[in-house]
Amino acid sequence: MFFKKKYKSNKVKTAFLVAVGSELLNFKVNQYSPVFSQKLKEIGIILKGEITTPDNLNEIKSAIKYAFNKTDMIIICGGLGPTFDDMTRQAISEITNKPLVFSHKIEFFLKSRYNISKLPENFLNQCYFIKGAKLIENHNGTAFGEILKWRKKIFIILPGPRREWEEMWEKKIKEFLKKEFNSGNLYTQRFKIADLKEMEVQNLVQDTINKYKEVNFTVLAGANICEFSIFSYNYLAYKKARKEIQEKLKNNIYGYGDETIEENLGKLLAKKKKTISLAESCTGGLTSSKITDISGSSAYYLGSINAYSNDIKHKLLKVNKKTLKKYGAVSKETAIEMAENAKKIFKSDYAISITGIAGPGGGTKNKPVGLVYFSVVSDKKIFVEKRFFKGDRKFIKQASANTALWLAYKMLK
Amino acid sequence: MFFKKKYKSNKVKTAFLVAVGSELLNFKVNQYSPVFSQKLKEIGIILKGEITTPDNLNEIKSAIKYAFNKTDMIIICGGLGPTFDDMTRQAISEITNKPLVFSHKIEFFLKSRYNISKLPENFLNQCYFIKGAKLIENHNGTAFGEILKWRKKIFIILPGPRREWEEMWEKKIKEFLKKEFNSGNLYTQRFKIADLKEMEVQNLVQDTINKYKEVNFTVLAGANICEFSIFSYNYLAYKKARKEIQEKLKNNIYGYGDETIEENLGKLLAKKKKTISLAESCTGGLTSSKITDISGSSAYYLGSINAYSNDIKHKLLKVNKKTLKKYGAVSKETAIEMAENAKKIFKSDYAISITGIAGPGGGTKNKPVGLVYFSVVSDKKIFVEKRFFKGDRKFIKQASANTALWLAYKMLK
Repeated sequence: MFFKKKYKSNKVKTAFLVAVGSELLNFKVNQYSPVFSQKLKEIGIILKGEITTPDNLNEIKSAIKYAFNKTDMIIICGGLGPTFDDMTRQAISEITNKPLVFSHKIEFFLKSRYNISKLPENFLNQCYFIKGAKLIENHNGTAFGEILKWRKKIFIILPGPRREWEEMWEKKIKEFLKKEFNSGNLYTQRFKIADLKEMEVQNLVQDTINKYKEVNFTVLAGANICEFSIFSYNYLAYKKARKEIQEKLKNNIYGYGDETIEENLGKLLAKKKKTISLAESCTGGLTSSKITDISGSSAYYLGSINAYSNDIKHKLLKVNKKTLKKYGAVSKETAIEMAENAKKIFKSDYAISITGIAGPGGGTKNKPVGLVYFSVVSDKKIFVEKRFFKGDRKFIKQASANTALWLAYKMLK
Repeated sequence: MFFKKKYKSNKVKTAFLVAVGSELLNFKVNQYSPVFSQKLKEIGIILKGEITTPDNLNEIKSAIKYAFNKTDMIIICGGLGPTFDDMTRQAISEITNKPLVFSHKIEFFLKSRYNISKLPENFLNQCYFIKGAKLIENHNGTAFGEILKWRKKIFIILPGPRREWEEMWEKKIKEFLKKEFNSGNLYTQRFKIADLKEMEVQNLVQDTINKYKEVNFTVLAGANICEFSIFSYNYLAYKKARKEIQEKLKNNIYGYGDETIEENLGKLLAKKKKTISLAESCTGGLTSSKITDISGSSAYYLGSINAYSNDIKHKLLKVNKKTLKKYGAVSKETAIEMAENAKKIFKSDYAISITGIAGPGGGTKNKPVGLVYFSVVSDKKIFVEKRFFKGDRKFIKQASANTALWLAYKMLK
């Protein structure tokens, strides 16, 4: 959801992305747009659109022509490999009427890199570049990047794999574009929010959105988490809006930018030198897996028991048989016992438990699919919370794991 | 990697995808292309390109016009929501000169769905559709899909979220397109492969690739798993190639099409009425989480212990202190004890263990980051295997979980 989209400043430069590669239209998820969008924003450029084309000369040319009239610069990513179906250079050469010329610099670079005296034939076409283009060395592959100015527009030509182009971008292209466009800074902040629905976030901040016409706002929903972003070229407006948003959402902010809940929970635990353990049920290990996605988590994470069956909840987690019988496995009472017992078994400072119904089967009228109980315990406190999530099995697992991490984060904060 | 790409048949129908949504140019990864490509291929249609536009009327119109001359049909996905920035319907209306008209059918449908007698204002624009279009009910959201024929081309208009459009596609649109295009069948098979690298797969099947000129082959790498696909309009060539591929890859095939290892492992367990439990270390719960992604897994999955610290490996999993001291936590000996003891603790028929170094810290010269030991035990057999994965922490976790599931699948098969 995008709340507003007119930019007041007429300084704003825009870019169009042309992603080349038949595989992008087949099995490979095209992750270029969000990555380039973010990198462009950092230097005050807005990504205005993206086209994916197969490895076909006419399609590549057609896409570049389409992009040409829309923006100040075109990023063309992919189709620079050594095989017959890599035609990006040729497409640009035909559009601009600039010949492809052989570069002894590239030849020398590749020979040194591979320590050979003669390049194999399929490497030789890697040595051609568009006449007049500025070459960018590739330290992670064989295809050089190129920057070309033509008819007052800028072409940035890059190999497809991110690990190849990212270094070129950070080390060379970013600086080049900043100078070239003399672009103003775009001020951005991404708030990471937990336990609020997209609409709840919108309702909380609607006044601020209406008030600051020069600031743009976006919200992106996840599984009981969401991202709320603001960006503007006007520093003063940005600063004021940011302050208001911070104030209005403060009870649900777990981080900023690329931070994750598991990362920030981990930082709190590491800082306070505390340990944590888990007793999971419906999340099936997902919450623990998220915690251990963070390097260094072994400093504070001791382990978990995933007690999927009731029998195991009793035998391994020592949940009282009476509790299970009287209140059921999905209940506040069971959740508390699970967390308290995990804390004892692992001898941790904190423990989290999750028990619920991920579906699609197993729901009843009183305990429908999506009902989940959480408990977080420390030496001093016991939290127990109930949530109800709507979605498929994987969504309910994700939302439950995020919520469990968020509740632990809140207790530690 | 795409091995060949010329289609011999001139019957092939093509489609172009227009993805509408500013968020797709910002933070959200655009997963539309590979999903639609696959769905189109099943009915013999090739995805020829994709364009992403922001929620901007002129940009949407421009993208549709671009796509119009390129293919037989255009799929327009997104921009059908109830807010002011959803303009897909208007864009198509302006291009085709067909007015937007109010549908009492949609109004009735939405009123019944939400059990209200009067629709709120922002729902009212959900009731408009393009005159002459065929409406497709949305059982998972508020925006109806539409099919429109104009100037011998087909427009398929769908809401953005996959959970909304997928059902419409499978239940209505697929059949419509099959009839409309009377398209020849495209014969496809996707082999799901475990424990072979992309290049190893290619080497095994290179002869077959060279031999069948009318068959296309693609391979898509994952975390110690990959997908190998073949497709062709020529049934005879397809059949022969498929047989050869099946024979050459048979030792590593875990499934076909959309099947996952956890799904097929689950099917084997359910069929044999056997249970399983896990003792995880470096995967931190990820393997168990994958198993519990499958609905009905509670029939065969009992639970797991994630013993992250050595202390817990001893105390909870009863791994002998001597074993840990002599061989270390990352060793064949520890892996076997972990699996055997998990089997005893959970009283399961099978048990899996995983212990390794996910990095980036914790590696040594003899036990580097990426070294992982696996054990799978049953009443009769003990498997123990060692693998070495190259990649970041999340990749190593994913590769380890997939490998663990694959080894259990192999034992049960």
